[in-house]
Amino acid sequence: MSLSELETPCLVLDRTRLERNCERMTQRFAGTGVALRPHMKTAKSIDVARIALKDNFGGITVSTLKEAEYFADNGITDITYAVSVVPDKFPRIAALIDRGVKLTTITDQIAMAEEVSRRAVEHGIVVDMLIELDSGERRAGVLAESDELIELGKRMTELPGCRLRGVITHAGNSYLCRSIDEIRKVAEEERVCAVTAARRLRETGLNADVVSVGSTPTATHFTSLEGLTEVRCGVYMFGDVFQSEIFSCAIDDLAVSVLATVIGHRREMNSVLIDAGGLALSKDRSTGAEGLPEDIGFGMVMDVTCQRRIDKVTVGRVYQEHGMLVSDGPFPFDQLPIGSRVRVLPNHVCMTAAMYDTYHLVDGTDDTVTGTWSRINGW
Amino acid sequence: MSLSELETPCLVLDRTRLERNCERMTQRFAGTGVALRPHMKTAKSIDVARIALKDNFGGITVSTLKEAEYFADNGITDITYAVSVVPDKFPRIAALIDRGVKLTTITDQIAMAEEVSRRAVEHGIVVDMLIELDSGERRAGVLAESDELIELGKRMTELPGCRLRGVITHAGNSYLCRSIDEIRKVAEEERVCAVTAARRLRETGLNADVVSVGSTPTATHFTSLEGLTEVRCGVYMFGDVFQSEIFSCAIDDLAVSVLATVIGHRREMNSVLIDAGGLALSKDRSTGAEGLPEDIGFGMVMDVTCQRRIDKVTVGRVYQEHGMLVSDGPFPFDQLPIGSRVRVLPNHVCMTAAMYDTYHLVDGTDDTVTGTWSRINGW
Repeated sequence: MSLSELETPCLVLDRTRLERNCERMTQRFAGTGVALRPHMKTAKSIDVARIALKDNFGGITVSTLKEAEYFADNGITDITYAVSVVPDKFPRIAALIDRGVKLTTITDQIAMAEEVSRRAVEHGIVVDMLIELDSGERRAGVLAESDELIELGKRMTELPGCRLRGVITHAGNSYLCRSIDEIRKVAEEERVCAVTAARRLRETGLNADVVSVGSTPTATHFTSLEGLTEVRCGVYMFGDVFQSEIFSCAIDDLAVSVLATVIGHRREMNSVLIDAGGLALSKDRSTGAEGLPEDIGFGMVMDVTCQRRIDKVTVGRVYQEHGMLVSDGPFPFDQLPIGSRVRVLPNHVCMTAAMYDTYHLVDGTDDTVTGTWSRINGW
Repeated sequence: MSLSELETPCLVLDRTRLERNCERMTQRFAGTGVALRPHMKTAKSIDVARIALKDNFGGITVSTLKEAEYFADNGITDITYAVSVVPDKFPRIAALIDRGVKLTTITDQIAMAEEVSRRAVEHGIVVDMLIELDSGERRAGVLAESDELIELGKRMTELPGCRLRGVITHAGNSYLCRSIDEIRKVAEEERVCAVTAARRLRETGLNADVVSVGSTPTATHFTSLEGLTEVRCGVYMFGDVFQSEIFSCAIDDLAVSVLATVIGHRREMNSVLIDAGGLALSKDRSTGAEGLPEDIGFGMVMDVTCQRRIDKVTVGRVYQEHGMLVSDGPFPFDQLPIGSRVRVLPNHVCMTAAMYDTYHLVDGTDDTVTGTWSRINGW
């Protein structure tokens, strides 16, 4: 089957680019003593995980328990669930541990650790926990220099149902950087935060075997890894236009695109309609943020081989099932006849891929669809 | 089971409100001679369709062929597929017609009608078609007064594989209105556009049995229905905060919300984290548009009964799996302890509901979950 025979809209994954992206990230940490624990929240696919895990130790990161269950079903046994645990999710956590998964959970709340411990004791298990740190993102986490860190560490240590394993942070604030130098600075702040917190815990006699950091920009541009034990990142596997604009990758590294069909010409409006709208592309507008080189609207429009951008065409507007292509200059209608196909590179691939349950595989410029991989969604 | 036992995030549907919303829209057209053909693109559920179809003629509108196939599987046989047909989708269209579905397709392109006809003849069927009109949205469609309308009508009539049924338009521009008077004006423009096009086709000796319009705002605030045969609208079944801000419904009409759990307090940042982020809520920002009463960010935060708003709390930021609640004033931490639950009313329910495959049903203020309904997604 070729790309021209697929039903649109659908998700296309260039396996050649995927493998190159994964190998590049793996090589970055090879021999450093820092383990790469790929974050599967973007790909949510065991086939992608197998490629990301090549030449790595085999552990992964997930953002939902559904991912944890799915990857455990597919043989992955070392999983960090990197979103603060809540008591109501305890039964699924216990079930994962019961079946032999080495599951690590995180929190920044004493009340949560206490409740997890209470339920764990009741269930007859001990739950591995990391203390979530805020290294500058200002989303979740305690500060590395705070009293709360030590209080939480002590409490987790004395609670019979918890096992304190160390610390974890995520420099999501790297997404706000607009130069590589800024990213390097954020990467160093992320490292210093994690290493400082681990040192303080150890100085108090507490355990901090795990010193975990990670975001694709900081994992790409760090200047030091000293004191870290692992790095978690995920979007690097696919890349997206936003990541290319913040120096994580180049446009020709982007492995995932949406295949769409031209369904209408509006010559008087200098635009073309495709059958990929807000549901097919997501409504993420990350390239519209301040200080980025180009606002691509809801996607960057490439030819069907995904090798060449169609002039400066972007998906300027989306409706539920319609995308409106626009151009700064005269619209290149001749390049996009009715019924022809384009590949749309997403703003933010985590959101776009989540609208699909299947990846259609291609290898580089060859338009043969070599297979399909499934992915999961939901919670 | 009660709401407090559900895994979060999940989608909650208040059946009492759904039934009231559907009945209200049905009553609006009862006895007018204009048929209500509910648009199922928002709900994508046969259970919701059955409620929307109560006291109506039984035909529906869909936005994807997957919806058409799903509803046909569930016994609905009169379906208008209201997104411009493309040649590559022909095999699925033919399969629906072959199994006895009265499927109506639309286009605004002569080339598309010709290609559909060619394939239809080859397949031994005739495909019902409506001409898509642009009544002011400036998305797709030909203008009612244009030469293209007559050309397209003539061509569809002479093509052996097409059967011209009439005209269709959608006043999506009603979403830009900021007063009921403006919506009334747009509704009248939508009606005049459709009626004018139908009259011009008939004056040329062409068929225009179907004169179809519809959007939730214009179906709510029309001043005349003269000359119309049917109305299509969909989001009215559930409503959302954006629709409440453009006068389609009240906040206490909103039937769909996302149930979420409080997973963190950030007192120094005056905010609270919930386990519903960009994937659970979607990244639609429609209430952020100019001229609307309140930008609710990514959702309006209600208590677990969905009867009372938590002060002025909104979902100010979203990450993939985290939502950050913010408030203009001092944050009401005491109302949102760790582990407690909220119901988040979405900006744009079509996008939010698409992140789930299940509706959890409640009836009004009772927190008993009375059942689940499935929904479909994808293409």
